[in-house]
Amino acid sequence: MPQKHKVVVTRQLIDEAQKLLESVPGLNIVQWPTEQPADRKWLLENAKGASGILLMLSDICDEELIKAAGDSLKVIASFSVGTDHVDRDALKKRGIRLGYTPTCLTDAVADLTIMLILMAQRRGGEAISKVQTGQWPKMPWSPLLMTGPQIRGSTIGFLGFGRIGQATLKRLLPFGISRVVYLTSEPGQLVKEDHFGLIKGAAIPIEPAKDWEQLACESDVLIVGCALTRSTKHLISTNFLSRMKKLSVLVNIARGPVVDTDALVAALDKGEIFGAGLDVIENEPNILANHPILKQPRCVLVPHIGSATIETREQMATESVKNLLAGLKGEPMVNEVEL
Amino acid sequence: MPQKHKVVVTRQLIDEAQKLLESVPGLNIVQWPTEQPADRKWLLENAKGASGILLMLSDICDEELIKAAGDSLKVIASFSVGTDHVDRDALKKRGIRLGYTPTCLTDAVADLTIMLILMAQRRGGEAISKVQTGQWPKMPWSPLLMTGPQIRGSTIGFLGFGRIGQATLKRLLPFGISRVVYLTSEPGQLVKEDHFGLIKGAAIPIEPAKDWEQLACESDVLIVGCALTRSTKHLISTNFLSRMKKLSVLVNIARGPVVDTDALVAALDKGEIFGAGLDVIENEPNILANHPILKQPRCVLVPHIGSATIETREQMATESVKNLLAGLKGEPMVNEVEL
Repeated sequence: MPQKHKVVVTRQLIDEAQKLLESVPGLNIVQWPTEQPADRKWLLENAKGASGILLMLSDICDEELIKAAGDSLKVIASFSVGTDHVDRDALKKRGIRLGYTPTCLTDAVADLTIMLILMAQRRGGEAISKVQTGQWPKMPWSPLLMTGPQIRGSTIGFLGFGRIGQATLKRLLPFGISRVVYLTSEPGQLVKEDHFGLIKGAAIPIEPAKDWEQLACESDVLIVGCALTRSTKHLISTNFLSRMKKLSVLVNIARGPVVDTDALVAALDKGEIFGAGLDVIENEPNILANHPILKQPRCVLVPHIGSATIETREQMATESVKNLLAGLKGEPMVNEVEL
Repeated sequence: MPQKHKVVVTRQLIDEAQKLLESVPGLNIVQWPTEQPADRKWLLENAKGASGILLMLSDICDEELIKAAGDSLKVIASFSVGTDHVDRDALKKRGIRLGYTPTCLTDAVADLTIMLILMAQRRGGEAISKVQTGQWPKMPWSPLLMTGPQIRGSTIGFLGFGRIGQATLKRLLPFGISRVVYLTSEPGQLVKEDHFGLIKGAAIPIEPAKDWEQLACESDVLIVGCALTRSTKHLISTNFLSRMKKLSVLVNIARGPVVDTDALVAALDKGEIFGAGLDVIENEPNILANHPILKQPRCVLVPHIGSATIETREQMATESVKNLLAGLKGEPMVNEVEL
């Protein structure tokens, strides 16, 4: 890079990533000074003449921003798994490359999935709430007090069975689960990628469901891990939930709108399923304290913290910087979106 | 059993166990009619002439009860893992046998241990509380928002490394942990029982700690799973906690008094450890809503639900009945306390 490149970075980055960025010679770094989201006006003003922009989920990358940057812009490096905040077509027609960070959060999300399964089965939210409100002294021991279903012997159902689903399965095997059934966009078809070598030669049956009815009927634990598309939106519906087992639990770590929240609230009310664990929900983050889902003692909702580990966020930051630099130099990125 | 045996049962039992009890010919069953604890006066009045008593943790079996039963008493079958509520000496001197149900809860407790580890690392309690109180809409995304340490690469420390500890380890292996260090009553010595064949030939180092200081310094996740004795009471002290890593978490699934609660509150206040997950606590269940541990956002406390799965409690009930019947017939029990 003989020429001095202007790069705009919409946050202060985590230690290692910040050091990597600052270590590169020949960069003119213009950086939003805090860990809070960058001001849009600041971004538009400073984009002018930038060769690269490293931005977050909360920064919209549209025609306006791209025009503000001008012809110098070569690369957008997004610190994110999704790229819904980026106008891909606008980048494509100008030949601007787009980097993102989809792979490094598999472990963090799979770990959280296990937490949510166990919390849904073992009534984690209800248990904490009883203690916090001082009810423990008034809970006389009885054989079925605060009991939930046990995971040993369960059939685990996966709606979507990609890398994160398979990483979750890897963790579930020593819990003594007995069977796996999964539904992908190709019902009845064997999944193509066996990311961790678990599927071929597995000690328990791991089988594709022929349709959503089979997935609903047979799962003791149903894990929603599919992409949000027109055909998966509200796939977990009143109809779906009514076919689930009374002692089953639902876990959503994918995207909120795959589950119809009203239907879920009704199913919990009626005892059609035992419990739920949600990392995502429709209309997040705009969930107020009076939201009906928060009145359900058997539902645990956490604020989209799937990838929220220090290690994962550091790695995402570092990969974003690497993608930015690769974009400037015309080299291969760690992960690049095909536009 | 040609003669009609009177048996006193201090609860209604769960389905299968109740059926088993009722299916035995020649029993005169006197049973407390609800799932709430039996009245002491009722128990003393009805014990008279009983050959066997099936009782719960909440029923004290002392000289008074044994005398009330009289010379006919052959067996106490306790629906419990611990037998602190039973006066063993009083049974021993009369040759009365004592059955209990210690083994069937391993899976349920190990499952809950995993839940508590993940909740302590991933800030489960804090996450739920933020959503419940309507704070989610006001949490602007930033790279380190709600992050915690990731389990991959961790050193797992076990204080006590028996069946439940090893069952927990079995579940932890696919999370990518890197090392195990354990402290038993014989520091520096290899543990004798390898309950699940995990230790010999393990893919990661699994080593005894030479002393508690080593366990404190090296653990990223510390799991308290030892018995409560004079030497383990308050073993997790101010001194112990001050040597732990700032990003480490403490999980107690054993007995409350192994951890000095005041010391834990202070350590969380000072940020000496990252978080805690507790199934047990000193003075439980008398934990009021103003207890200082409940003010710690990074501490999760659940009301001693380690064995609280439907399957485990059913199995415990069935085993209690089997122990009772074996005691009447002079046959081997599923699990008998050596008096």
